[in-house]
Amino acid sequence: MGTHGETRPDALGRRYDEVRSYTERLAAKLSPEDQTVQSMPDTSPTKWHRAHVTWFFETFALAPAERDFAPYQDDYWFLFNSYYEAVGPRHARPMRGVISRPGADEVGRYRAVVDKRMREALADEEALAKTAGIVEIGLHHEQQHQELLLMDIKHVLSLNPLRPVYDGVRPPRGAPGGVGWKEYEGGLVEIGHEGDGFAFDNELPRHRQWLEPYRLADRLVTNGEWQEFMADGGYRRPELWLSDGWAHVTGEGRRGPLYWTEVDGTWYEHTLHGTFPVDPDLPVCHVSHYEANAYASWAGKRLPTEAEWEHAASLEPVGPANLADTESFHPHAASGPDGSLRQLFGDCWEWTTSAYLPYPGFRAAEGAIGEYNGKFMSGQMVLRGGCALTPPGHARASYRNFFPAGARWPMTGVRLADGGAS
Amino acid sequence: MGTHGETRPDALGRRYDEVRSYTERLAAKLSPEDQTVQSMPDTSPTKWHRAHVTWFFETFALAPAERDFAPYQDDYWFLFNSYYEAVGPRHARPMRGVISRPGADEVGRYRAVVDKRMREALADEEALAKTAGIVEIGLHHEQQHQELLLMDIKHVLSLNPLRPVYDGVRPPRGAPGGVGWKEYEGGLVEIGHEGDGFAFDNELPRHRQWLEPYRLADRLVTNGEWQEFMADGGYRRPELWLSDGWAHVTGEGRRGPLYWTEVDGTWYEHTLHGTFPVDPDLPVCHVSHYEANAYASWAGKRLPTEAEWEHAASLEPVGPANLADTESFHPHAASGPDGSLRQLFGDCWEWTTSAYLPYPGFRAAEGAIGEYNGKFMSGQMVLRGGCALTPPGHARASYRNFFPAGARWPMTGVRLADGGAS
Amino acid sequence: MGTHGETRPDALGRRYDEVRSYTERLAAKLSPEDQTVQSMPDTSPTKWHRAHVTWFFETFALAPAERDFAPYQDDYWFLFNSYYEAVGPRHARPMRGVISRPGADEVGRYRAVVDKRMREALADEEALAKTAGIVEIGLHHEQQHQELLLMDIKHVLSLNPLRPVYDGVRPPRGAPGGVGWKEYEGGLVEIGHEGDGFAFDNELPRHRQWLEPYRLADRLVTNGEWQEFMADGGYRRPELWLSDGWAHVTGEGRRGPLYWTEVDGTWYEHTLHGTFPVDPDLPVCHVSHYEANAYASWAGKRLPTEAEWEHAASLEPVGPANLADTESFHPHAASGPDGSLRQLFGDCWEWTTSAYLPYPGFRAAEGAIGEYNGKFMSGQMVLRGGCALTPPGHARASYRNFFPAGARWPMTGVRLADGGAS
Amino acid sequence: MGTHGETRPDALGRRYDEVRSYTERLAAKLSPEDQTVQSMPDTSPTKWHRAHVTWFFETFALAPAERDFAPYQDDYWFLFNSYYEAVGPRHARPMRGVISRPGADEVGRYRAVVDKRMREALADEEALAKTAGIVEIGLHHEQQHQELLLMDIKHVLSLNPLRPVYDGVRPPRGAPGGVGWKEYEGGLVEIGHEGDGFAFDNELPRHRQWLEPYRLADRLVTNGEWQEFMADGGYRRPELWLSDGWAHVTGEGRRGPLYWTEVDGTWYEHTLHGTFPVDPDLPVCHVSHYEANAYASWAGKRLPTEAEWEHAASLEPVGPANLADTESFHPHAASGPDGSLRQLFGDCWEWTTSAYLPYPGFRAAEGAIGEYNGKFMSGQMVLRGGCALTPPGHARASYRNFFPAGARWPMTGVRLADGGAS
Repeated sequence: MGTHGETRPDALGRRYDEVRSYTERLAAKLSPEDQTVQSMPDTSPTKWHRAHVTWFFETFALAPAERDFAPYQDDYWFLFNSYYEAVGPRHARPMRGVISRPGADEVGRYRAVVDKRMREALADEEALAKTAGIVEIGLHHEQQHQELLLMDIKHVLSLNPLRPVYDGVRPPRGAPGGVGWKEYEGGLVEIGHEGDGFAFDNELPRHRQWLEPYRLADRLVTNGEWQEFMADGGYRRPELWLSDGWAHVTGEGRRGPLYWTEVDGTWYEHTLHGTFPVDPDLPVCHVSHYEANAYASWAGKRLPTEAEWEHAASLEPVGPANLADTESFHPHAASGPDGSLRQLFGDCWEWTTSAYLPYPGFRAAEGAIGEYNGKFMSGQMVLRGGCALTPPGHARASYRNFFPAGARWPMTGVRLADGGAS
Repeated sequence: MGTHGETRPDALGRRYDEVRSYTERLAAKLSPEDQTVQSMPDTSPTKWHRAHVTWFFETFALAPAERDFAPYQDDYWFLFNSYYEAVGPRHARPMRGVISRPGADEVGRYRAVVDKRMREALADEEALAKTAGIVEIGLHHEQQHQELLLMDIKHVLSLNPLRPVYDGVRPPRGAPGGVGWKEYEGGLVEIGHEGDGFAFDNELPRHRQWLEPYRLADRLVTNGEWQEFMADGGYRRPELWLSDGWAHVTGEGRRGPLYWTEVDGTWYEHTLHGTFPVDPDLPVCHVSHYEANAYASWAGKRLPTEAEWEHAASLEPVGPANLADTESFHPHAASGPDGSLRQLFGDCWEWTTSAYLPYPGFRAAEGAIGEYNGKFMSGQMVLRGGCALTPPGHARASYRNFFPAGARWPMTGVRLADGGAS
Repeated sequence: MGTHGETRPDALGRRYDEVRSYTERLAAKLSPEDQTVQSMPDTSPTKWHRAHVTWFFETFALAPAERDFAPYQDDYWFLFNSYYEAVGPRHARPMRGVISRPGADEVGRYRAVVDKRMREALADEEALAKTAGIVEIGLHHEQQHQELLLMDIKHVLSLNPLRPVYDGVRPPRGAPGGVGWKEYEGGLVEIGHEGDGFAFDNELPRHRQWLEPYRLADRLVTNGEWQEFMADGGYRRPELWLSDGWAHVTGEGRRGPLYWTEVDGTWYEHTLHGTFPVDPDLPVCHVSHYEANAYASWAGKRLPTEAEWEHAASLEPVGPANLADTESFHPHAASGPDGSLRQLFGDCWEWTTSAYLPYPGFRAAEGAIGEYNGKFMSGQMVLRGGCALTPPGHARASYRNFFPAGARWPMTGVRLADGGAS
Repeated sequence: MGTHGETRPDALGRRYDEVRSYTERLAAKLSPEDQTVQSMPDTSPTKWHRAHVTWFFETFALAPAERDFAPYQDDYWFLFNSYYEAVGPRHARPMRGVISRPGADEVGRYRAVVDKRMREALADEEALAKTAGIVEIGLHHEQQHQELLLMDIKHVLSLNPLRPVYDGVRPPRGAPGGVGWKEYEGGLVEIGHEGDGFAFDNELPRHRQWLEPYRLADRLVTNGEWQEFMADGGYRRPELWLSDGWAHVTGEGRRGPLYWTEVDGTWYEHTLHGTFPVDPDLPVCHVSHYEANAYASWAGKRLPTEAEWEHAASLEPVGPANLADTESFHPHAASGPDGSLRQLFGDCWEWTTSAYLPYPGFRAAEGAIGEYNGKFMSGQMVLRGGCALTPPGHARASYRNFFPAGARWPMTGVRLADGGAS
């Protein structure tokens, strides 16, 4: 389901250890009670994430690789299957939070046993030949869940009136300055994954697209700009909104981004490192596609298409980015303008105006793993880039993230676009 | 919001009369009770359709055109506004069926009064100058509601165990033969409305798209082919379905198209002309995008993109089509193969694999009329062509119809596509 | 299921004609469209009421009485069965409003045919012997539906912004004066139906109950008194409310009785004869049990038990009452105090503090007719008396009406009680 | 809100320690994860129970008793208030399971601090004078939550496919024999709490009721008898059910008691001590009022009224009972018949046919504590006796337990009654 990445045993084993232990480092900051809670059907408990990614290796790598494979625990195949119909029935998603056992410690033991067996499989050339591809996918899969683990626990903690803190440090002050615009000629361009590195199947095949000339903002929209939108009646003017978006925003009585609360005239923002007054220089985050779209309408601009975004990104030098390894767990202010598309990777996933659909010529893999991406190509919007919760090494120009247009608990932000018309 | 069509007063007045009287002809076959019922939130009562399209002319044409304009009835502005936020608050859509008054007769009087005033406005050159554009839109708007009126009453009657009939004659027997495939080179093509005729704003601007080589089936999928899909477990095999589609199909326990019922091993189909055993030679209709997609997966094919469809359609000769004027009110069997893309217009709206999104450079009109199309560009799929309920003169190659992926009460069908990959 | 009432053929036939034609007189004021609408799952369309009571006679009287019985229309047995499991499956209650056919006229024909056959059966001594009991029940059943028809159409018309009027004249002004209290010794009393007249099975058996001394208010609570309750924060003070009631009132944001609307500081009331400013001297009506209970708490009183009510009512002279035959279709102001329990019958059904439960020794009848009352003895509260929509001859001291505690669309009011404690 | 029980400081302090430490003993068998889960809106997490009962003492005893009272943690007043409107806003009940912090350990610390301060208050004569009454209530309140804690965790564990065990031993085999019937003359009896012991306000005032002669079964209905009911179509015959009950049973597709599962033709029962084949000699438990009522109809009997039950119970010798201290945590089989009403206390709460309503002359206490019982007197049914999860010392003849008619997660069972008719 993806192109192969690294396949040399040593390197793969080392990366396996790195990725797996990073999950445990993220979880170690959370109590057993924290790890048990599911705050809404979209989110999952921390210990479920830890177990599910382990089940993925057990099911897709150990089962084919081990001669005398037996599952660690029969019921885990039911409990920790996320959505693979081909693997069999599974525990209902919205009920993940009622499963107190296995507890966080026992999940740790499950992980340790699978890790031991995985290391044996990775050291065995014959087994490795069968599984290198799926192990690679499993590692990228686990990285996706590292990000989700952080997004989900942020939501869990936000519901607690005690305002609990996860970890991280407050982002440094910045001075992003005004928005600059980078221009692109367009024409017949190619997008989609290219080369030898790893990619998910939905990034393929690389293909041609025709683009009209367009412009992209050179940084993300800031909290300060978002507050101008709010002050100008942004949440009360239906003409700015898509019809579904207006229904959302009025149905839930929204007045600002998720995690913002107004107390005595001051807006505060819940973050993984605590609750603070909204900093106008930081990028706005946790807004839905509907909100991003309304903001763009208000600003007289639009959101980019994914092809515009990817084409532009492929022209940028890859520099340092604010991913999870900065341990802020929150977007940073853009640095001063330097002619590049700032904040391209990291900080916030960027909503595009593209629906999540198969590329021309897309084919899902055979078997259960074919369910990984393809079956979700309906009713979702593409996001590009990465965010401050994305593990390092997991962001790339061709990566297609996707969420429903109303989702706000992912760490999402807004980059404006313009042009494209004749 | 659209390009202008006809503007000569005589011709416009004549078309006004034709379109308006056609609505009344369609409604005349229904009792006051039939015209009152709303069968689900998506559908509207017949008399609501009749009043709403009249409100459209009153609001958007008479109000600006008449010197001493006064509304026919203040409350009608509230009752018969569909979704125009800019015009003010309006009656909740799912509650259209609890409004017994004005009754069907009074709606007829409302129509007559507005028609009289419209004819005066159309005869007055000064008024006409202001309103010709919006009158043209209003006529196409009313044609859309003629089609909806028929789709909606079909749903209403389907819920009645007495199996009531609307009208129409049983389609003639046909022999569509096997599917042929037409090949297209692709390359840099143009799509979108072109020329002087009328078009909605969502068909604009005409723009370039890159297409890889592709093939289209030369007729619609038939009931017989659909029954093979059912017999092969089509509704029980998750691997064929989009994830959202599988949730739909299992959540509602679906086993076949809407309006199909199995009695003692035989499938029957509810139509506007009665309930009959399913005819294997007719096109399958009233399937959702999810079902269309699953069928295509089963057949090893895919649905066309809207650009592929439009490009191909623009190369076809425009021939006779099974639209509402055949008075079958049901798709016909394809005639024998003749090298053309049969059933392109009429018979069934054809699901594409394209999400309903703005064309590059799309701009909605200013004011209330700008809400016509643009704000629905989220969460819906494009359909192309026309159906047996579409009024004559309302189908064209660039026309973009759209419905949510789960909708089945529109008269929807399936044309397969292939290729497009490098 | 009830004790027998009238059984002489002539008298029964005459009463049959009277009751049946009264239904048609009530419906004649409504258009076909009015008769089609169901405004919420609790209410039914007028033409459904007209057909259902006819189905009752056809099913329970004609079927056993006619030698060669054949149903008028097979599907009507499905469409017009309300809740009799023993008679077979039936159309879902909340979907009664989507059935446009049979129309109002055809329902009239159905009624005429059944009436003709019923008159023959009533004239035939042998048939009469089999059916006199059930015919009697059928007539009382039809009277219940006459009342429901009016309650339901009041709700339908209330949802229409055109403020349509059913019929009736505005109640005369009155001067009810302050509340007086009548005292009762209690002790071992008997309640339940007694004597030869008709009664439903739930009024039986007559049995003993022990009552502590108590007092009853000699008139209903007025709109003026209710407005004092509102002004004193009645709808904002949780300590006055049952827990379920508080959830209702806050969940729906209620600020006054159903059908009251505040416009520019003045409260208006929707009635069957039009919308008028609230008259402080009229009894408050369309309040739920929860509201009645909260009002009583605020007033430092309580609601009566059904035994207290019935015992007191059995001591009162039966005088004229404001039932449907006054054609006000709305409660009247109490006349000046005269030492009696004013407004006992008619005006408003009176909430009691008694749950609707079987009397000691209650047994439901055998067969389908046993479903009439017994199976609803759960989750509902008893109301006593009658209301301004009750047909004459249908109110009596032992009559047990019942509705869920949250129901407001019946014409319900409040009589206070006190005492009962040692 | 109750009559006083024990007020001597020493005794009260000793009882305080006993009750408080018993809660912790029950919770100690559960992991932090177990203690965090809320399985449905009706149930609460273990650690919430532990904190809420502590909040009760802090709010109602410490706050008035301590000179310089300050809350342990401000937010706990919000988080651990169950339903006391007078104490202020509170955390939404269905969201108790998303609160991971305070964790189980921190709740233990909260308990320890409040216990220390409570012991000081109990040792201080002046403080004691103010709080003895409320402390007594608080202890009975905590005992109620000990029972709920067990009922709730039973439900939590039941949802886990791993079939986790709480604790307890399998009940001994028994031979209950056939049902015997005890006869009662009835007449004018007194019910309600009497004497010096503790009682809740809803058990007062003691008052007279008239009872017709009646009979009670001398033991609870067994699993074996319930299986006969099932085999005879008990869950498929609407004529046995109350209308609301039939809607419940068909809507949820129920075929047996809660916690029963059929595997390959054998029924298994989930208990706190594990999952075992259903033992026909044990009492049936976890059935709703609707199910109990349907069973009684099928058996040609009825459920007792609460007055019948209490009158009979007051004539019985108080013997040993299967309460939580037997540590079975499950009902026992009835011992052989001995002329008494076996299983009166303990084993299963017994559904009555009485709605939960105020006794004649009932008055709720002033202030927040008045919300304890009175506001729930709507929409619920009375249960009498006690169950195998009830802490010792918490069962008495006048005790009125109450749940909605559809509740099944409490440990509920069935005792039949007969007679009562004239």
